[in-house]
Amino acid sequence: MSRFRHLISIDDLTKDDILYLLKQAERFEDIAMGKRCKYLEGKILANLFFEPSTRTRMSFETAMKRLGGDVINMTAHEASSVAKGETLADTIRVVSNYADAIVLRHPLEGSARFASENSTVPIINAGDGAGQHPTQTLLDLYTIMKESTLEGCKIALMGDLKYSRTVHSLIKALTLFNTTIYLISPPMLKLPAEFLEGLNGRIEEVELEDVISEIDVLYVTRIQKERFPDEEEYKKVSGSYVINRNIISRAKESMIVMHPLPRINEIDVDVDSTEHAKYFKQAFYGVPIRMAILYELLKDGDGCE
Amino acid sequence: MSRFRHLISIDDLTKDDILYLLKQAERFEDIAMGKRCKYLEGKILANLFFEPSTRTRMSFETAMKRLGGDVINMTAHEASSVAKGETLADTIRVVSNYADAIVLRHPLEGSARFASENSTVPIINAGDGAGQHPTQTLLDLYTIMKESTLEGCKIALMGDLKYSRTVHSLIKALTLFNTTIYLISPPMLKLPAEFLEGLNGRIEEVELEDVISEIDVLYVTRIQKERFPDEEEYKKVSGSYVINRNIISRAKESMIVMHPLPRINEIDVDVDSTEHAKYFKQAFYGVPIRMAILYELLKDGDGCE
Amino acid sequence: MSRFRHLISIDDLTKDDILYLLKQAERFEDIAMGKRCKYLEGKILANLFFEPSTRTRMSFETAMKRLGGDVINMTAHEASSVAKGETLADTIRVVSNYADAIVLRHPLEGSARFASENSTVPIINAGDGAGQHPTQTLLDLYTIMKESTLEGCKIALMGDLKYSRTVHSLIKALTLFNTTIYLISPPMLKLPAEFLEGLNGRIEEVELEDVISEIDVLYVTRIQKERFPDEEEYKKVSGSYVINRNIISRAKESMIVMHPLPRINEIDVDVDSTEHAKYFKQAFYGVPIRMAILYELLKDGDGCE
Repeated sequence: MSRFRHLISIDDLTKDDILYLLKQAERFEDIAMGKRCKYLEGKILANLFFEPSTRTRMSFETAMKRLGGDVINMTAHEASSVAKGETLADTIRVVSNYADAIVLRHPLEGSARFASENSTVPIINAGDGAGQHPTQTLLDLYTIMKESTLEGCKIALMGDLKYSRTVHSLIKALTLFNTTIYLISPPMLKLPAEFLEGLNGRIEEVELEDVISEIDVLYVTRIQKERFPDEEEYKKVSGSYVINRNIISRAKESMIVMHPLPRINEIDVDVDSTEHAKYFKQAFYGVPIRMAILYELLKDGDGCE
Repeated sequence: MSRFRHLISIDDLTKDDILYLLKQAERFEDIAMGKRCKYLEGKILANLFFEPSTRTRMSFETAMKRLGGDVINMTAHEASSVAKGETLADTIRVVSNYADAIVLRHPLEGSARFASENSTVPIINAGDGAGQHPTQTLLDLYTIMKESTLEGCKIALMGDLKYSRTVHSLIKALTLFNTTIYLISPPMLKLPAEFLEGLNGRIEEVELEDVISEIDVLYVTRIQKERFPDEEEYKKVSGSYVINRNIISRAKESMIVMHPLPRINEIDVDVDSTEHAKYFKQAFYGVPIRMAILYELLKDGDGCE
Repeated sequence: MSRFRHLISIDDLTKDDILYLLKQAERFEDIAMGKRCKYLEGKILANLFFEPSTRTRMSFETAMKRLGGDVINMTAHEASSVAKGETLADTIRVVSNYADAIVLRHPLEGSARFASENSTVPIINAGDGAGQHPTQTLLDLYTIMKESTLEGCKIALMGDLKYSRTVHSLIKALTLFNTTIYLISPPMLKLPAEFLEGLNGRIEEVELEDVISEIDVLYVTRIQKERFPDEEEYKKVSGSYVINRNIISRAKESMIVMHPLPRINEIDVDVDSTEHAKYFKQAFYGVPIRMAILYELLKDGDGCE
């Protein structure tokens, strides 16, 4: 029996659920790196991407195929011609007939929840607009667990804290783990006050210099040009939120740098070769995490346990 | 030995051929629903889609993969860049080298037949413009067989009977099964007179009210906005060809409603939860029907029989 | 152990390497034609196509799947949305986590070499702008070996010798095999003088009439309209570089005609049915050649040897 029928929001998971999935992911790491396995042989996953997210799609596709399953893709370009006025509910009902589970990426917040109410097969939310992207949050937690310590972690979140779905979901999940959270952002990209209200836990707005020497994790996000009224303002702000070797040198030896990728110039390439850089490892961890989720939702009961 | 080398038109099949494929489809239903099978292991299907039809493509892909085979896709977007002036004959000759069978979707009527004359591997027509789409016709027949009775069936076809390829192919096939066919459409979308001439069997133009209480099947098709000179005319006409619970309440308990999908608003969503609604089941039946065809064209002789 | 870690340029291979790959390809021909095999079961290939080349992509995909492996695709359309300013190095580092090897098609010369320096998995160059396309060269050599004789071959290269990447790579490789090379082209599309300088071997500019009766291979390439200042000039030139039955009739019985495809009108369709025509066979040979390369780069050591 699965613990969940769908994966729509990280908020649907208890701390216990999360720890269970992280533990499972650890068991799938060698398969993620190429060890043959047939746990999900004969199962088919449909990737329904109503907006492009090649990285996420490829990560799910690899996770499914490494587990011995197969994948059918509908990319964003096809989606645009599929539409013709058909409702999402109808599309989901039809695709439910073609696959054993559906990964859904859709620009509208709430679409994944809505899809799950119209589907006869499990729905995995791979991003619904400003809403959720729970597998991203899980792989972030997994990276912290593997490369640092999750329980009691001191983490600084830096960059666009206002619009970043990734950051919002991660903050909520982190509060389950007795963490200390530092927020570092330009004034106009601060975490919304109403978001902070609902949270308990140690959360503080700071400057990077104040905390660089004590944090365990520095989580950097991209500052998007589109958020700024003019190019000059963007350049000024984004330029002062760039991580380089000089800044890193003041951190603890064990401090790790994370980034959901793609990065543009928020992290200098000279950081890549340091032991602090874990953003490519973080991308890799997306594979075992997605395996753990796919396995949980699709296993027949006679699997790897 | 296969009964056919290609599947180009429903008109190429005898009643006996059709019944054989429907019977085979029935045997593949549990595999279509996820039972593991390796009948076509090692075989590769090429989906060549020169125009988008995501639903048909995914249905074929699932059918092939559920049978243990694999698929390579060329989507419509790629096709547009493939072209560069190459003839369809050359494209088919090249792709014949990469796959054991080809599913072809192409905007030009007659293209599938032409392709079959230039291919060293079986061609399956997945729609050639105003021409044929034989797997759609077979899944329609299969749905009637499974959810109602095919032989002697009383069926009403409603909506666009002038341009709908689906309807034209289905009518021809239905005349093989001693059916009574009722035609219901706006005057400007009537079945062309010359089409009727070639047919024998009971076919009659009626109003829905006259036959709703006696029909076994109500097959609804979409009325496309593009067929009308102006928006007002479209709204008036399409609005009076909408099926809802009120209309359905006058039908026999066993009457089924079908639709090739996607639907826009031809069938009210309140019909979905009634026992009459079979359009999503109909979409599912596309998988075992396509399995039956793929198996027939690709089996080695040591298969499931 | 593999002989190479990546395949970037035909110039990286010795004559011995080339002969080894051609010999391996011969062993894979029955698998290319459909014999089941699981040599690369559990392995995943990523096709990263930053510009469209459907034929090459499908050929690699079939080669990998016929060997029992699986494939994840990123098509050119997706690539355009992937970009968002991410460097190729970052893209490669991320995709290295999802696959056991990467086939890269990219518009910039040198990109494949650069990618190989940033990848933890083997990179296969499937064309980098004006640079290299080594699997095309290998399949050309293989076709000559199989359908004629490679060592000491007399080959005429005809058409666009100035811009054709295919021709440039093939010439370099041919000089390893003691061949005689005849160059036939319109004056404005002649092989660049600086290219000739670096080569030793018998190379001569001729007219087709002078050599048609003695050559073993006639390799025809497409003359692209875009190379000409106006339509009239293009028509005049391209019209006089068309191969037809009349011209072919003066050739040796064993002379073969090759073309990298797609062809527009450089070879009359009436040549297709002659024994000389080997261009579709040539397309097929791309499959066993790509199998040989994939196997060489991905084998575990317990494979087909």
